[in-house]
Amino acid sequence: MAANTRMATAVQILCVIAYKGAGGTNAEVISRSLQTNPVVVRRLLKSMEQHGLVTIRPGKDGGVQLAREPDTITLDDIYRAVEPEPEVFALRPIDNPKCPVDIRMKGLLGPIFRAADSAVQQTLNQTTLSTLVRAIS
Amino acid sequence: MAANTRMATAVQILCVIAYKGAGGTNAEVISRSLQTNPVVVRRLLKSMEQHGLVTIRPGKDGGVQLAREPDTITLDDIYRAVEPEPEVFALRPIDNPKCPVDIRMKGLLGPIFRAADSAVQQTLNQTTLSTLVRAIS
Repeated sequence: MAANTRMATAVQILCVIAYKGAGGTNAEVISRSLQTNPVVVRRLLKSMEQHGLVTIRPGKDGGVQLAREPDTITLDDIYRAVEPEPEVFALRPIDNPKCPVDIRMKGLLGPIFRAADSAVQQTLNQTTLSTLVRAIS
Repeated sequence: MAANTRMATAVQILCVIAYKGAGGTNAEVISRSLQTNPVVVRRLLKSMEQHGLVTIRPGKDGGVQLAREPDTITLDDIYRAVEPEPEVFALRPIDNPKCPVDIRMKGLLGPIFRAADSAVQQTLNQTTLSTLVRAIS
């Protein structure tokens, strides 16, 4: 697949918030760290708010804070918060029921692709946001 | 990332070839199994030929055969043959050298992202084409 930087961007957003400390920060400050458009930052913040990782305070003095302690947020939590379908590989539908190969592929590849997703999940679960932030501070 | 079906399609192409046996087959037969355009099949076959997985015989009586025994072709070999950059996550470049978070992210996330790729590789290495084809026949 064409790997994208959404995961790296989301992790960096949370690292900036955690690095700024208890008072939190805002999308403009975060977007300067990333040198990207605040719209991109706000879109990812919204997803992470929906998944309980951050709290967004709207308005003129608005901002964003972590909703949980950084040592309880794993990289897998972040992945699931910003990827609607956190899958490495997609299966094909069964399109040709008359073909002995086609009718078996989904059943054969399903468990292997799920094992790949699970291996990624286990890897990401080994690191928390606090581990990263401690290495930055 | 948006997972795509390229890996599933490539595996199915090789399964059809292996299922057809020593005589091989051609892109039209494979495209009927997949119910997809022969152009898609030919493009993936070309990548797999470049990576030594298949032999393409051009011309009117042309066709395609496996270049190696199916028990020596792992799913990871197939993944690497059809994905120019077999990476689950992409790193961001360092865009803001003045930001203490930005300058550290690449170094911190690099080993984690490589571990995720390695976990996927290990999972895919556990299955060969012959294991799949035996389950079809």
